[in-house]
Amino acid sequence: MSKKIVIVGAVAAGPKAACRLKRLRPDWEVTMVDQDSLISYGGCGIPYYVSGDVSDESELRATSFHVVRDATFFEHSKGVRVLTQTKALAIDRQAKTVRVENLETGAQQDLPYDKLMLATGSRPFDLPIPGADLDGVFTIANLHKAIEIKQRIAQGKVSRAVVIGGGAIGIEMAEALTDLWGIETSLLELAPQLLPRIVDWHFAAMLKKHLQEKGVAVYARESATELLNDGQGKVCGVKTGQRTLEADLVIMAVGVRPRSELAKAAGLDVAPWGGIKVNQRLQTSDPDIYAAGDCIAVTSLITGRETYAPLGSLANREGRVVGDNLAGYPTVFNGVCGSFIMKAFERCIAATGLTVEAARAEGFDADYALTAPADRAHFFPDQAVVILQLVFERKNRRVLGLQAFGMMNDSISARVDTAAALIAKGATIEDFGMVEMAYAPPFSSAIDSINAAAYVAENLCDNRLRQIELGRFLAWMDNMASEPDWAVLDLRHPVEAAPYVERYGAERWIAMEYGQVRTRHGELPAGKTFILLCNAGPRSYEVQVFLDHLGKSASMVLCGGLNVISRLDVDWLLK
Amino acid sequence: MSKKIVIVGAVAAGPKAACRLKRLRPDWEVTMVDQDSLISYGGCGIPYYVSGDVSDESELRATSFHVVRDATFFEHSKGVRVLTQTKALAIDRQAKTVRVENLETGAQQDLPYDKLMLATGSRPFDLPIPGADLDGVFTIANLHKAIEIKQRIAQGKVSRAVVIGGGAIGIEMAEALTDLWGIETSLLELAPQLLPRIVDWHFAAMLKKHLQEKGVAVYARESATELLNDGQGKVCGVKTGQRTLEADLVIMAVGVRPRSELAKAAGLDVAPWGGIKVNQRLQTSDPDIYAAGDCIAVTSLITGRETYAPLGSLANREGRVVGDNLAGYPTVFNGVCGSFIMKAFERCIAATGLTVEAARAEGFDADYALTAPADRAHFFPDQAVVILQLVFERKNRRVLGLQAFGMMNDSISARVDTAAALIAKGATIEDFGMVEMAYAPPFSSAIDSINAAAYVAENLCDNRLRQIELGRFLAWMDNMASEPDWAVLDLRHPVEAAPYVERYGAERWIAMEYGQVRTRHGELPAGKTFILLCNAGPRSYEVQVFLDHLGKSASMVLCGGLNVISRLDVDWLLK
Repeated sequence: MSKKIVIVGAVAAGPKAACRLKRLRPDWEVTMVDQDSLISYGGCGIPYYVSGDVSDESELRATSFHVVRDATFFEHSKGVRVLTQTKALAIDRQAKTVRVENLETGAQQDLPYDKLMLATGSRPFDLPIPGADLDGVFTIANLHKAIEIKQRIAQGKVSRAVVIGGGAIGIEMAEALTDLWGIETSLLELAPQLLPRIVDWHFAAMLKKHLQEKGVAVYARESATELLNDGQGKVCGVKTGQRTLEADLVIMAVGVRPRSELAKAAGLDVAPWGGIKVNQRLQTSDPDIYAAGDCIAVTSLITGRETYAPLGSLANREGRVVGDNLAGYPTVFNGVCGSFIMKAFERCIAATGLTVEAARAEGFDADYALTAPADRAHFFPDQAVVILQLVFERKNRRVLGLQAFGMMNDSISARVDTAAALIAKGATIEDFGMVEMAYAPPFSSAIDSINAAAYVAENLCDNRLRQIELGRFLAWMDNMASEPDWAVLDLRHPVEAAPYVERYGAERWIAMEYGQVRTRHGELPAGKTFILLCNAGPRSYEVQVFLDHLGKSASMVLCGGLNVISRLDVDWLLK
Repeated sequence: MSKKIVIVGAVAAGPKAACRLKRLRPDWEVTMVDQDSLISYGGCGIPYYVSGDVSDESELRATSFHVVRDATFFEHSKGVRVLTQTKALAIDRQAKTVRVENLETGAQQDLPYDKLMLATGSRPFDLPIPGADLDGVFTIANLHKAIEIKQRIAQGKVSRAVVIGGGAIGIEMAEALTDLWGIETSLLELAPQLLPRIVDWHFAAMLKKHLQEKGVAVYARESATELLNDGQGKVCGVKTGQRTLEADLVIMAVGVRPRSELAKAAGLDVAPWGGIKVNQRLQTSDPDIYAAGDCIAVTSLITGRETYAPLGSLANREGRVVGDNLAGYPTVFNGVCGSFIMKAFERCIAATGLTVEAARAEGFDADYALTAPADRAHFFPDQAVVILQLVFERKNRRVLGLQAFGMMNDSISARVDTAAALIAKGATIEDFGMVEMAYAPPFSSAIDSINAAAYVAENLCDNRLRQIELGRFLAWMDNMASEPDWAVLDLRHPVEAAPYVERYGAERWIAMEYGQVRTRHGELPAGKTFILLCNAGPRSYEVQVFLDHLGKSASMVLCGGLNVISRLDVDWLLK
């Protein structure tokens, strides 16, 4: 028997559910409503539209066969009715109707439903600061805003921009403005680091350094306190606690919040922070109402706790699950690892699962293996260093997360995606050590970087490898007097080590090449704690094991070595 | 208490085990013997050395910090004694000694061991044909052969080459010769396809077409019967059943066989095909003797049966497991998926698990989902089509394998590696549908290609999608009279369909654009079985569902559509 399905929201989860449902139940009546005129677009593509990589906004709304996904497309190709510029005002759960208003005509009507889906998405958080409503101040709320930003740029109206918010969208927008339009761009982030909660501080520091090299002025621990008016209602600058930045364009990208007012008003369970609560079948507290996408609370596959993951990819997967369940085919959505990836100029940064910081905050006995191998066979021409960090629980050896920073290509995808697949299955360090990465020199190493990271983690868990935390090392470099007995033992080629020895003195910076330690260890001064240093870490570990064997166990390995240190936005290398 | 460990073979598994063991047991005496003078090299890099991508052979034997891994390196840096040019002649399991001979001096000695490891590797199969011993005929047996090949080329002695064997090494060598040296190269493969048993025929056909476009003459179903002598002991041509090819260089790359004579002579269990039998701890039938690398039989994680997987990456992982077990830390090696990847000019081809053909031969109720999506967001500038095929069991929905063919970048690594991680855990189609691939437009699609392939598999299993096997479609295209009631229903843009309609006639090739089917389906002729065709497949599936709903259920989807067909090495497009 045909049923009536109403879907509120037609960007990602909504259309996916609608189309899947129509394929499963071709005779059901499916109606989508959306308050916008532009629907079913790839919101994650907005920075690439602004940059010019994507030349026309309609490409973000087109199928792979170049047909624009508008109301007519859904009607003709999918058999789904779409009411655009139509706002859902209220749900009457008793009568099972949704009151909607046509925003052009003001006409209202009640849409009856057998089952309802909420795919109301998210809205950007508006900073409550003076000047937030000035002309030239934008959030990346929808495609209209993106079109307006690009028009201003294309008309030559923008020469200086400030992006507020160092999350993915903020960074992508900063790149778009700087790289392709040559706009002088500053990026402000209130937190002490970019991508807070997504990557650990040292990954953020590597990213920051690269952004700065590419001409973006990055200010962390700095928030906008006021947007300045040029006297004619247009923004002309941004005031922070520390400085005033000139700007004819300001982009606020300080995160998004679930749009869940409709759900809340209807009496559905909504988390205090706004996420609509759903079960594994993505049913809300009313079994006739489903929800998916940026408006819902999901479950972390790592902590088992409620989390927020507003991503277009998840919205699509969730939408399909809702489509199945609406059609009467029970399907579950278990939760998320929280995979993240982004291009930043010539680099790629990615993560899945928990950071060390987040894991420790969640109460995990977390540690990390920081490595710096080649991203493919080290003899292959295109190879480059990738920084890879495995986060794990020491006690039960479960892997909690992976982070990576490297060149802009897909090699990091391979490691992060594999990691997410394993983490979702509760994999241990040993699973990571054994995972079979397809090998040929143009793609990977005989010992893949993900296997190698697991080996380091294993050695840490087994207390064979003792590392010094990166932050502690940097603090010591800042004030060597704090630990008077420490010295770096630099295992690299003497030519590489020489400038450091000269700079820090042979007391503090001892050069002894890796291949000579077995014969020359007698020369090492007594009473020192050695910080073992090489380019990537493996040589340091090898030497630590050897020194331990001699009974000289006062050593710590700087995991990741110079490859990590030299990529950080810290200035000790130049002191 | 210190123990004596002897390792026979010092290329991949041997050195890995030796170094790991020395880190775990620094006071143990570890001795490696190898009959060669060059050890610890990346054999998979040989084609890139021959091509010139890797300029010097020593790079294949160097660490990432540019130190050559010779006997001195192992002695000084690792504390491992290495006897090069030393052949292991026999094992006395009672006395626990290995008799070895120094190939330079002829001196023999018995090396005592507490535990022994065999890492004797593989040898290339020599074709038993006349002329196989002529000058200019090579196998890729070791680095010396590679050096000699490259010298000949660099000296301008090679203008025409024949590579016998269409496996990975043969194809990589054909590319090296053609691409960088401009040598006129032919490639012979006895089987009906390239990469037999590694990919299904249609993937091999796509690869063949690309090789031919790049100037390699590929002859499948054709074997060398004789190598021709120029009268002075040098090869000058290759005779096959069908033709004679001129050649001043012949490379035989017809597979490798385990080197297990030493094991067999010592009475260890060896499979009839030559693989040394080991348990999960990689112990041979003598608990004091371990084995790893190209000389052993491993277990397929998919079939649970014995298989052969001579890969440098596996050799390293196995070597580490042996190192652990030798040291007394029980560690297991469960088995392999058989992941494979290779660069072929501007394309990448990869696979993990079983092909459809292999799966059916193994008795699985196997089917396949063939898809042709974009390898990243379809609106992103660099995007390109990737052909992705999921192989699965219909009954229990377990995934058995994945194959991919696309552009030469790392995006296929990401999908194949993720697939291998899942397959090793016994994952189902639903796991593939849910796997969380990190999404941003430069890297992936909101619905990742691997998720999309799983959706197609799901629809096949649920009998919602009925496909026509590719081979059956091509057979019909060859002889349309064989199925007089069949017609293609071309759902692409009329401009795309027009030349086909003209060529095959409006009876056989009906053009009706996807977006018009819901309004124009009444025009479709009765009594026909429609082969639904679009670029990638999704539109065809959508239309099949719709036609089914109308009761017109005589239709079959050509999965992968024109994107697959146009990449095949078949000529029907031009008829």
